[in-house]
Amino acid sequence: MNKPETPNALFQRRLNVLSPSYYHHYDDPLTAVRAKGVTIWDDTGKAYLECYNNVPSVGHCHPNVVGALTHQASQINAHSRYLHDNIVTYAERVIATLPDEIDTCVFVCSGTEANALAYDIARTVTGNRGVIVSDGAYHGNALAVADFSDYQLQAPSTPNFVRSIPLPCAKLTGPEASAAATPAIEGLAQSEHGLAMAMIDSIFDGPGIYTAAPGYLPQLADTVRGQGGLMVMDEVQSGLTRLGDNMWGFMDSGIVPDIVTMGKPMGAGYPLAIVAAKRSIFEAFAETRSYFNTFGGTPVAGAVGNAVLDVVQEETILESVGRVGRELTFGLNTLKDQFGFVGEVRGKGVFQGMEIVTDQQSHHPDRTKAKAIVNDMRRAGVLISACGMHGNVLKVRPPLVFSESNADQLLTTLAEVMDHHH
Amino acid sequence: MNKPETPNALFQRRLNVLSPSYYHHYDDPLTAVRAKGVTIWDDTGKAYLECYNNVPSVGHCHPNVVGALTHQASQINAHSRYLHDNIVTYAERVIATLPDEIDTCVFVCSGTEANALAYDIARTVTGNRGVIVSDGAYHGNALAVADFSDYQLQAPSTPNFVRSIPLPCAKLTGPEASAAATPAIEGLAQSEHGLAMAMIDSIFDGPGIYTAAPGYLPQLADTVRGQGGLMVMDEVQSGLTRLGDNMWGFMDSGIVPDIVTMGKPMGAGYPLAIVAAKRSIFEAFAETRSYFNTFGGTPVAGAVGNAVLDVVQEETILESVGRVGRELTFGLNTLKDQFGFVGEVRGKGVFQGMEIVTDQQSHHPDRTKAKAIVNDMRRAGVLISACGMHGNVLKVRPPLVFSESNADQLLTTLAEVMDHHH
Repeated sequence: MNKPETPNALFQRRLNVLSPSYYHHYDDPLTAVRAKGVTIWDDTGKAYLECYNNVPSVGHCHPNVVGALTHQASQINAHSRYLHDNIVTYAERVIATLPDEIDTCVFVCSGTEANALAYDIARTVTGNRGVIVSDGAYHGNALAVADFSDYQLQAPSTPNFVRSIPLPCAKLTGPEASAAATPAIEGLAQSEHGLAMAMIDSIFDGPGIYTAAPGYLPQLADTVRGQGGLMVMDEVQSGLTRLGDNMWGFMDSGIVPDIVTMGKPMGAGYPLAIVAAKRSIFEAFAETRSYFNTFGGTPVAGAVGNAVLDVVQEETILESVGRVGRELTFGLNTLKDQFGFVGEVRGKGVFQGMEIVTDQQSHHPDRTKAKAIVNDMRRAGVLISACGMHGNVLKVRPPLVFSESNADQLLTTLAEVMDHHH
Repeated sequence: MNKPETPNALFQRRLNVLSPSYYHHYDDPLTAVRAKGVTIWDDTGKAYLECYNNVPSVGHCHPNVVGALTHQASQINAHSRYLHDNIVTYAERVIATLPDEIDTCVFVCSGTEANALAYDIARTVTGNRGVIVSDGAYHGNALAVADFSDYQLQAPSTPNFVRSIPLPCAKLTGPEASAAATPAIEGLAQSEHGLAMAMIDSIFDGPGIYTAAPGYLPQLADTVRGQGGLMVMDEVQSGLTRLGDNMWGFMDSGIVPDIVTMGKPMGAGYPLAIVAAKRSIFEAFAETRSYFNTFGGTPVAGAVGNAVLDVVQEETILESVGRVGRELTFGLNTLKDQFGFVGEVRGKGVFQGMEIVTDQQSHHPDRTKAKAIVNDMRRAGVLISACGMHGNVLKVRPPLVFSESNADQLLTTLAEVMDHHH
């Protein structure tokens, strides 16, 4: 299957059979043929340090995960209408990492499916339709979810049952940002739609990697609940230790959500996502609605999920993420001091962003330079990306097993590349 | 992970951590611990003939599929923003099985995601919102799709942009049924919603396994297109040779859809689903919308999809399904002649239904007896299910590799069980 082929030939074949909605990273697309831990090799044998992908959470092709996948796939992979220990054990283990009140699970295949189900539940349980999201939020690609993903600016106009609220940022503290959200929440609750839920991230990727600053989430949750809505935390990006202080990002703020959605990193590449909630919420949903997901909660999904949790525990990944995250924060801020075209450095744990601007006075976003740095980094053997409203925020979001020496290599290469753009 | 445990203990643990929306097959839930081909073993070592599951299309745990999964999962499983041969080759192979006009793919994880994307495309491309489905149709579990899944009778009222149309049945020929659909299609097209699409199955599972009788689909497609809508064929159930005459069910009618969705059997248990369409449709969609699916079209999904297609070709499954399907149709009709409580026998290929009624004169549905037969069959070591508006249609939908001797065993056991209910 992986016969050498000129990248252009493969790229042309791809253009012929895949939708034009597909796109690729880098000016010169990367043909990725092998990966292990935090290294990806292309079709010429060149190795890259992986600083971008969150899905291979415990590292690409972790032998314990591949082993669990292989073993279970060779035993049985039926759906959840038969009993099987794997998914029950996995549910028990996931729940044990969450606040006591969040005691029940449903399994699905993707973060999109998890967020779509969370909304379906919120709509059914509250009888309301309105959704609060944060500015620039992305919660999935399916129709119902895309409707309330504020990020897709090119999409048809946002439906009027969705309102977006400001994020905490340099100019707005957590309490200020949540106070600024109150009019939108109250307005939606009092509209014909009513308030079904707020769906909020613990780290705000789409708009450019902002964190939920202290004081933001608790007050927001109070306001949302005071207006009859559910507080849904989307942990698809921030979950499974990524922010370095806790297993789940919302725990940094001490709140207890009504619903938590989990996705990408949970299966380390296997399509595995979860909706966890208070039992009373699922009970209210089940009164009027059935839900079945063919591929959600299979024995293979459970085996993979359990293997990933094993690795997270055995390799003490939470501690490692905290340590490496502090090194990244320090190193990126050092680069900010060195280079006049760096704006803010933001993020937490192994989810970091560095704004590229024309200069630190005007703070004008420099998308062109950010893109050039991303492509030069790729040439130098380090894979990062850019994100944000203006596409000017360098995004560093490696597998959770990213080590201090990996961070050194990233920072050293970044310094060299940035020096060329000085 | 599979330590023996009393079924009740596992069941109780499951009740404690999974949502009450989960349900299980059979009065006495089956703990399924191993499977191979068309055999499932429970936790006591008892073997069952598998006559129900369509997901393990080429048989449970086919060694070539497990081998491909294992090999690719140990090499790399990145997303589709890097180039990889597997998914391109797989797209080329899928397209080669479809009419020439259907030349472009997008990969997703589940039939639900495929149908949600198809609707998103139809809505974007036509600028309309209205959806035509057939009576009792099920097209997925996500909010947007559940909205137009007519089957979920307990759900909140169907939104008024969805209209359902009659199926061909004993009392309505194909042309009569499609003619009867015209007023609903025209009415929706002329409403404020306009007509985005008709989403139609090639075999109608939910309402009780009806087939698209000759003359139904061509005239329906003409009417839908004449009113500005797209014709979307949902091949999640009927696809990949299941109906025995063609690779895809719609081919039995000779129509060329605008969009085709494929799901369950494609990955033989791995979450793999596809939206295929005419390139012009994807081009129009891509003009205003982006779409990315993290787990759709990964190298592992491609490897598994290719392995499944290999097995379908190497084991000449289409021919086998045709042959076994004819035996099933004959055998089930023989039982109908023997037992006065059998109504119609319907279906095609390895997708067969047998109505259980109080008597052949009144034709009154007998859900209780159907359920008793399903549970007795399970005790006798054969797994089937019941479906339909009244839950009284025995459903036989085994893996595609179901053989003539498997069919013999099913029919013999069914005759014995039915004799007890005489």
